Amino acid sequence: MTAAGDLRAEFRRGLVRPTAGLVPGVAQANLIAVPRDWAWDMLLYAQRNPKPCPVLDVSDPGSPATVLAPGADLRTDLPLYRIWRDGELAGEVPDATVAWRDDLVAFLIGCSFSFEASLIDAGIDVRHISAGSNVPMYRTGRQCRPAGRLRGELVVSMRPVPADRVADAVTISGRFPAVHGAPVHVGDPAGLGIGDLGAPDFGDPVELRDGELPVFWACGVTPQAAVMASKVPYAITHAPGHMFVTDVPDTEYEA
Amino acid sequence: MTAAGDLRAEFRRGLVRPTAGLVPGVAQANLIAVPRDWAWDMLLYAQRNPKPCPVLDVSDPGSPATVLAPGADLRTDLPLYRIWRDGELAGEVPDATVAWRDDLVAFLIGCSFSFEASLIDAGIDVRHISAGSNVPMYRTGRQCRPAGRLRGELVVSMRPVPADRVADAVTISGRFPAVHGAPVHVGDPAGLGIGDLGAPDFGDPVELRDGELPVFWACGVTPQAAVMASKVPYAITHAPGHMFVTDVPDTEYEA
Repeated sequence: MTAAGDLRAEFRRGLVRPTAGLVPGVAQANLIAVPRDWAWDMLLYAQRNPKPCPVLDVSDPGSPATVLAPGADLRTDLPLYRIWRDGELAGEVPDATVAWRDDLVAFLIGCSFSFEASLIDAGIDVRHISAGSNVPMYRTGRQCRPAGRLRGELVVSMRPVPADRVADAVTISGRFPAVHGAPVHVGDPAGLGIGDLGAPDFGDPVELRDGELPVFWACGVTPQAAVMASKVPYAITHAPGHMFVTDVPDTEYEA
Repeated sequence: MTAAGDLRAEFRRGLVRPTAGLVPGVAQANLIAVPRDWAWDMLLYAQRNPKPCPVLDVSDPGSPATVLAPGADLRTDLPLYRIWRDGELAGEVPDATVAWRDDLVAFLIGCSFSFEASLIDAGIDVRHISAGSNVPMYRTGRQCRPAGRLRGELVVSMRPVPADRVADAVTISGRFPAVHGAPVHVGDPAGLGIGDLGAPDFGDPVELRDGELPVFWACGVTPQAAVMASKVPYAITHAPGHMFVTDVPDTEYEA
């Protein structure tokens, strides 16, 4: 069993925790499963918004299997799920087996956790990992390009980076376009429509130290914002920060 | 009017010719339009085979418009089209207006012509451009990953490259992942299931000189091979080598 497989087994047995920093070196993924009737809109939304929604795999309808981790079960192997009805959060559960439906098509979307090991290797502190908390995520005022019935705003994750390492953080993450790539915004939260960095919409706040800039990356929670804004009748997603840990090495997504 | 717009207008008026080397600096694209009922399969096929099928844009059903060239008409602005019925080539026409249907969803797929200007700038001769012919393309023995009802083999384009410039050709084209990126194969045509380089399945043969290796890139004719292999009931595509010339600078697709 791989380290990632061991961790998925722990999640299957009920462990609930954010996944940043776990099993460094393998890619993590966002989950969004929607009814087949909405799958075209979602795949097109992802194609039209590749920065927040880089698609790593799409399941066959009803199937909880993925090529990203043969043998894994998408209904049980994430630490925490969100269930959505008519665009409203209907519940958070550690096991989505009962909520799963035969007509669901599951999308696995790249996650910026996948390049954090490379940032750390370069000596850039990833604050939410060193603090042992969940990454802070924010809804922005920037609208994604709509697709069919889907519309919604861009969601971003934030990492504080010292001014003299911002260029390195851009260069390093830019090498990983399939897991959000380079930042979408550096500094100036107001320019993204973010009012208070201390009050993220998802995840936990982190300390911003003197000489550090808030650096914003496109985030795979963006499809959840589309579920809300577009009132998708039914969806199952990961809970923000509680990702699917794949068997795919990070390097697979390095350009 | 841009140079690309002028050229599209010439195609609209009836000019028929391959597009390699025309309007250096703007991206060119493959066209595949399928009935709405097949669009999910096609988009998923593209997602599962991103190297031959990098999607640059998808139209709304019936719409001949694309964000890649505002004001252009996909029914008229390519130099030559192929019409497909039940997986068989039903005709080649310079204008697809009559063949267009309200339920067609058009996919624009990245084209390796988009990085040829960069190869030439680096002093690498692009043989089909200097010869004034169409690029040679070959069906291979390599199967793509199926999606729904779609399956088919990988199609490749070939450019001869001197042995001491192969690494440069790899590096340069690798900077353009959205237009097929780095080669899939260098040398050894038999290893790809190609019997005779002098008899390409599409386009024209080119001279392979002493000291040159045949270098193979994934090709956007791959969806046409899927149309054939999967007997798609109806499709409109570009004729191989006769691409849609966009308004998007090549550099937009440079990583």
